[in-house]
Amino acid sequence: MPQPPERVAVLGLGLIGGSVVQAIRAGSGEAWGYDPDPATVDAARAAGIETSATVAAAVADADLVVLAMPLPQVADTLSSIAPALDGRAVVTDVGTLKQPVRELVARYAPRLRFVGGHPLAGTEDSGFAAADPLLLRDAPWVLTLDPGTDLGAWLDVAAVVCRLGARPVPVTSADQDATVARVIGLPHMLAEALALTGLAGGPLGLSLAAGSYRSTSRVARTRPELVATWCDANPALVGALDDVIERLQATRTALATGGSVLELARAGHAARMDWEHRRMTAVDVEASVDALLAHGRDGGWITAVEPGLPGLRGMRPADRRDSA
Amino acid sequence: MPQPPERVAVLGLGLIGGSVVQAIRAGSGEAWGYDPDPATVDAARAAGIETSATVAAAVADADLVVLAMPLPQVADTLSSIAPALDGRAVVTDVGTLKQPVRELVARYAPRLRFVGGHPLAGTEDSGFAAADPLLLRDAPWVLTLDPGTDLGAWLDVAAVVCRLGARPVPVTSADQDATVARVIGLPHMLAEALALTGLAGGPLGLSLAAGSYRSTSRVARTRPELVATWCDANPALVGALDDVIERLQATRTALATGGSVLELARAGHAARMDWEHRRMTAVDVEASVDALLAHGRDGGWITAVEPGLPGLRGMRPADRRDSA
Repeated sequence: MPQPPERVAVLGLGLIGGSVVQAIRAGSGEAWGYDPDPATVDAARAAGIETSATVAAAVADADLVVLAMPLPQVADTLSSIAPALDGRAVVTDVGTLKQPVRELVARYAPRLRFVGGHPLAGTEDSGFAAADPLLLRDAPWVLTLDPGTDLGAWLDVAAVVCRLGARPVPVTSADQDATVARVIGLPHMLAEALALTGLAGGPLGLSLAAGSYRSTSRVARTRPELVATWCDANPALVGALDDVIERLQATRTALATGGSVLELARAGHAARMDWEHRRMTAVDVEASVDALLAHGRDGGWITAVEPGLPGLRGMRPADRRDSA
Repeated sequence: MPQPPERVAVLGLGLIGGSVVQAIRAGSGEAWGYDPDPATVDAARAAGIETSATVAAAVADADLVVLAMPLPQVADTLSSIAPALDGRAVVTDVGTLKQPVRELVARYAPRLRFVGGHPLAGTEDSGFAAADPLLLRDAPWVLTLDPGTDLGAWLDVAAVVCRLGARPVPVTSADQDATVARVIGLPHMLAEALALTGLAGGPLGLSLAAGSYRSTSRVARTRPELVATWCDANPALVGALDDVIERLQATRTALATGGSVLELARAGHAARMDWEHRRMTAVDVEASVDALLAHGRDGGWITAVEPGLPGLRGMRPADRRDSA
């Protein structure tokens, strides 16, 4: 296995890009950034981060390029960096949805050694001012393995992600987007619907809304345009919404006919507590596409990709046999 | 106006009762407790709280009695304390719904000087171990004013609540339950539905669920039986669920036909930010039932009930004229 990337260019220094560049530097890696916004560049420099004046200068000496700009800017960036990189550096991104980026790469930079990435570490704040090198610690970080993905490039990016203390999850772009519809799209839709409906009964609601309104609607604080970019391009969200509407409708019918919300409350409570309390166990994972995808699909992640190891190290959900 | 109550008996030393008795004592008031569970009594005594061996002993010298036991125990308690109190002490409760308690009082203790109460200060934890004298600081605290409520008794309870640093909200039982359906019932139903549906796509969801799943499903950690007691007896929750289902269905239809979630996201974001940033202004409030109910309905609360003041002091939402 080759040495993992040592020189990382981060294009876009918002919440995620700013956190990535700081986390790599905090781990004594070499990383620098680029951002088109002068105020962001000033803030990054004030925080001790080296910045490049142009995208071309930023990627010139990199062996890993992280695309951390908003999705609408990705196509232009791919077109401009593809010729210069010429199969030399690995490129990854940090966007919420992986199918749309995969399609852009196929169209604008088909020969790029590209690995789709998605660190699940947002907050409702944004911009470099909110960046934090610890934001990514222990965060799940999707790295996509699709037909055509270069396994060597995937292992390179996974090695960098592991060194940041985050958790690479190997998964296809389609599976990641379907899951993101449920664990990101749905929470945002329900939070927005609650934020609005919870207070639609008049000013008294403004006084009485307290802890449960506050936490259940928290992510409605996110910029609406950002929420729309995560949701509008994800066809899997339609089915996820159907699923949640059906459960709410069944509970509504039970309530209206003298029944109870207890069935929903018990099932929801059990799901949440199982999630909090699941136990993981350390395993070796073969460095093959099939073995990695099976590991991710079963709820596992990677913890170490080191030259010299026979394969990779990872964690997977413990079953009864493990705890016996 | 008479002196407010000075001697408070708290029946039930769980999260809310335990917090109330501690908060009164922390403010150098006189308060003691009763609980049927020996382990709870031991914990309360270890925390320096005086306890009575029986309900009758607890209420004997009190001028305010706080019912802080679960709703199924309220009827028996009302029956047993009503003869002894004989119009002498004021009785209040801390339950989530106010119509069911009002009906119990009408049935079992119609001559009691009763004021329904609901401090909006729960957490997903419960029991005396989770009690905290600061839990109630700045919390909205519904105090009901219904036909037949003794205004003097209402002012007595409001004075105690103000001294705890909480915010009495004057409101009818029907209005409180309708609003609670939206700001407590709905958040719990949506959190339960998300906790379940978010993870219904397979084990990969267990890895990728992160911040937005965590906060939006937080209150699904509450005991399901407790959630059911807040929801099952509240007919207003049916309409609130219809309202939220309709909004989700409209968004689902938009998504499925190439549209955007942006309309919902903008409206939800605006509602949440308006709630966070609303400005309040200090006002005098006349000590009459009509003036108090109008004040509560408009989003106001009471800040001071002191003998000698011409009326009460309160806060109400500032309008443009106030900020001009």
